[in-house]
Amino acid sequence: MINKGSVDSLVNLCSRRGILLPSYEIYGELAGFYDYGPIGVSIRHKIEALWRDMFIDNMGNLEVFTSIIGPSVMFEASGHLGTFTDPITKCEKCGSTYRVDKILQAYFIGKKDMQKANDVLKMNNEALANTLHESGLKCEKCGEKLGKVVSFNLMMGTDIGPLGTVKGFLRPETAQGIFTDFKKLARVYGFKLPIGIGQVGKAFRNEISPRKILIRMREFTQMELEFFFDPEEKSLRINGVEIGPNSLTKEVNFLSRDTQENGSQTAKKIKINELVSSGLVPNALMGYLIQIESEFLEAMGIKEGDIRYRQPMKEELPHYSKGNVDVEVLVGNDFEEVVGNAYRTDFDLQNHQKYSKEDMAIMSGDRKLVPHVIEVSFGLDRLFWAMLSGAIYMDDSRGWDVLMLKPRMAPYDYAVFPLQKDDKIMAKAYGINSKLKALKLSTYFSQSGSIGKRYARADEIGIPKAITIDYQTLEDDTVTVRDINDASQIRVKVGELK
Amino acid sequence: MINKGSVDSLVNLCSRRGILLPSYEIYGELAGFYDYGPIGVSIRHKIEALWRDMFIDNMGNLEVFTSIIGPSVMFEASGHLGTFTDPITKCEKCGSTYRVDKILQAYFIGKKDMQKANDVLKMNNEALANTLHESGLKCEKCGEKLGKVVSFNLMMGTDIGPLGTVKGFLRPETAQGIFTDFKKLARVYGFKLPIGIGQVGKAFRNEISPRKILIRMREFTQMELEFFFDPEEKSLRINGVEIGPNSLTKEVNFLSRDTQENGSQTAKKIKINELVSSGLVPNALMGYLIQIESEFLEAMGIKEGDIRYRQPMKEELPHYSKGNVDVEVLVGNDFEEVVGNAYRTDFDLQNHQKYSKEDMAIMSGDRKLVPHVIEVSFGLDRLFWAMLSGAIYMDDSRGWDVLMLKPRMAPYDYAVFPLQKDDKIMAKAYGINSKLKALKLSTYFSQSGSIGKRYARADEIGIPKAITIDYQTLEDDTVTVRDINDASQIRVKVGELK
Repeated sequence: MINKGSVDSLVNLCSRRGILLPSYEIYGELAGFYDYGPIGVSIRHKIEALWRDMFIDNMGNLEVFTSIIGPSVMFEASGHLGTFTDPITKCEKCGSTYRVDKILQAYFIGKKDMQKANDVLKMNNEALANTLHESGLKCEKCGEKLGKVVSFNLMMGTDIGPLGTVKGFLRPETAQGIFTDFKKLARVYGFKLPIGIGQVGKAFRNEISPRKILIRMREFTQMELEFFFDPEEKSLRINGVEIGPNSLTKEVNFLSRDTQENGSQTAKKIKINELVSSGLVPNALMGYLIQIESEFLEAMGIKEGDIRYRQPMKEELPHYSKGNVDVEVLVGNDFEEVVGNAYRTDFDLQNHQKYSKEDMAIMSGDRKLVPHVIEVSFGLDRLFWAMLSGAIYMDDSRGWDVLMLKPRMAPYDYAVFPLQKDDKIMAKAYGINSKLKALKLSTYFSQSGSIGKRYARADEIGIPKAITIDYQTLEDDTVTVRDINDASQIRVKVGELK
Repeated sequence: MINKGSVDSLVNLCSRRGILLPSYEIYGELAGFYDYGPIGVSIRHKIEALWRDMFIDNMGNLEVFTSIIGPSVMFEASGHLGTFTDPITKCEKCGSTYRVDKILQAYFIGKKDMQKANDVLKMNNEALANTLHESGLKCEKCGEKLGKVVSFNLMMGTDIGPLGTVKGFLRPETAQGIFTDFKKLARVYGFKLPIGIGQVGKAFRNEISPRKILIRMREFTQMELEFFFDPEEKSLRINGVEIGPNSLTKEVNFLSRDTQENGSQTAKKIKINELVSSGLVPNALMGYLIQIESEFLEAMGIKEGDIRYRQPMKEELPHYSKGNVDVEVLVGNDFEEVVGNAYRTDFDLQNHQKYSKEDMAIMSGDRKLVPHVIEVSFGLDRLFWAMLSGAIYMDDSRGWDVLMLKPRMAPYDYAVFPLQKDDKIMAKAYGINSKLKALKLSTYFSQSGSIGKRYARADEIGIPKAITIDYQTLEDDTVTVRDINDASQIRVKVGELK
């Protein structure tokens, strides 16, 4: 019997195999911070490489790498210093802190009062305080009264320069570096609209309650693409191909705002060009990007049935949004957002223009304009977690967990196992290992433990093929190749490995 | 005439082509922070890939990815909170800040008093204040008196959690995450000594005076390898190969402490095994790592004559060091440190053991021990800068700068230029571009400007080969391939490109 594994078994596997480690754990856990062990790093690299292939290279887009720390004036312009807050309350006795909107939403969802649960999103601190009082909710830890509601800014600050001359912040999204560099990049690269500029990098949010391992972290990695375009230009060509109804024919599981307002969470299969023509997706460019996203998630091996494209409720959107679509993947029992598509209009560039007095307009044909932007923001850690949670299986006949990753996403191409610690076999194994590396294949070399234990380890971390070198290899240059899918073994000539 | 370019012309080139951009420049320059534009990012990726090949994969080492923010207790243990300071003074009138040791060193070197210049390194704040007073040095900006000498900690702090419950710091080196994870990694990966654990990531130092573009930054990227070994084990095998006199036969330009004390800066060519046997390099493992470093710098295209291996003065070493070797590369007129080799002994693991109460000993054969460590710490940004500054040339016959990079380090494998904006030529060019990408080659596609201008751009950013698609291509499927080295052009079948 092969069964789908649980999130709990994934947590165990990641700890047991050192795929993830709570950061600085020897000093007690620092909530919201995780390190990646070697196997985790290999898988991360694969996800990043796939993103770069599909969202930068194949589209002819540009990649940048901007600083994490920025000056406060920049985050005033971007709106983060003013509005990047969560409403919190503290227990008057034990000091436990809670996000008021989250505990109220959970409270009303528990009472099946979806209307009230949605209303919470619209409330200011005063209304939240009143509702909290009416609800009678107490501290979960000690049962005491909760205090007043205040806005807590999620930005993490630091001082720049000796004696704290400049106040700086760690960016809460990688996007702003792309916006502030935009005009200079347009000038020196001489690019034409539409053009995407992306980057991979760390971002920081001082979450009130980090949770679900990699789902809500305080330090995390984003892969963000800001796609700049002229909103008046009707015909959109990318790599010389016209983006329109005929090229947006993929179907996705879409959950509209209307459906959610009617109390349902059931997504419907709809063609992307229909989503665009009905206005559920704000324009063809976002439709095109969603199509690439669905191909990307497919290439990662995430099952189509585990993915839904959700139109956020009005209350969830920033005021400048002209349409968002969240891409959510089933992790355990919950759909978790792994990609955010946001039509940010010209909000960011206009604000930076206002605060910096730098002209952000560029020429598009004969027109001078400040371009509009559609953002595709991937959470790399969440994607990692979603991919692994969909790939874990328990195979009763083997008796251990198996990670059924797509070979392209596996941490290594081959496991290389010398059967005995005999000098000749070891030398042969090192030789084969080097040959595979010369073919640009990545390998996991292990000589410790029984061969059964080593197969178990290879299965657990999703290595598609394991090679065993034994005495017969010394005679006829063949190795045993074991396949992760069915644990089948065949004898293959070393020269045929690729 | 082909002449070596200057650092100034490199600064211009990087700005003109958007290779580097001062971060958030539209808000005024934030000293010590740089963004990489698309061309810079491509080159960075190549350096990182080479490092991963040589220092992780080829050696059978492990790569991790640890958090940037850590709790203060961890940096107490590592010694950074106590001792990671620079002595500074402030002008009493205009408030300009200076690093006292640096201005005093420059002052004594100006007076050719090398003895005093070295003595400065040993002085505490009181002695520095006295020496500063005796020197009569004033503020460079306004000529006024300089104030008292205080220790300024370079660590950048931030608050973790709501209401600032935990004080955290941005790491000033990536190393500590490796040390704190060491024991858990040893347990779950079951590795044997010697083993290297490395990572690539951001680090932060609140430098008093950031300078020389990428040489002294406040936010920068390190590629660090911590190599753990048993100091009592005489025979060291890596990948099954014995590391000893016979395998350490490479020659390097070495500048010993004695030579520097005698007032000379002239390095001597010495074989690595002689450096080890004479104790100038503390042990064979560091000798081995230095040998790989010299191969790495060679693969990057940095000229052997521009590299020296310097034994730091006693005063430059942390007290726990049992021997350091800095690798310095000529950038303009100055040798700049791009790699630090440090024999850190068991200092870090012992301190973490003491502060965390976690046993850091592992088994090595029959012995239980806390391993010793040799650290190889690369500054990725400095390496990038050193490589580019050695590669820039001015070719009078072409009339523009040429970046003579090794093809492996070039930002793109091919430039792809459609000669005219004719629909058929454009379609053909897109087709050839896709074919090259399918061969895993990276391309720089450009259709704007005259072909001469486009060649100039390709030369300036070091693209080894440029392909031009013209009317003849439509007839016989051949393209013009231009070589960066001599600007020569040949006609080649598209199918032969690789």
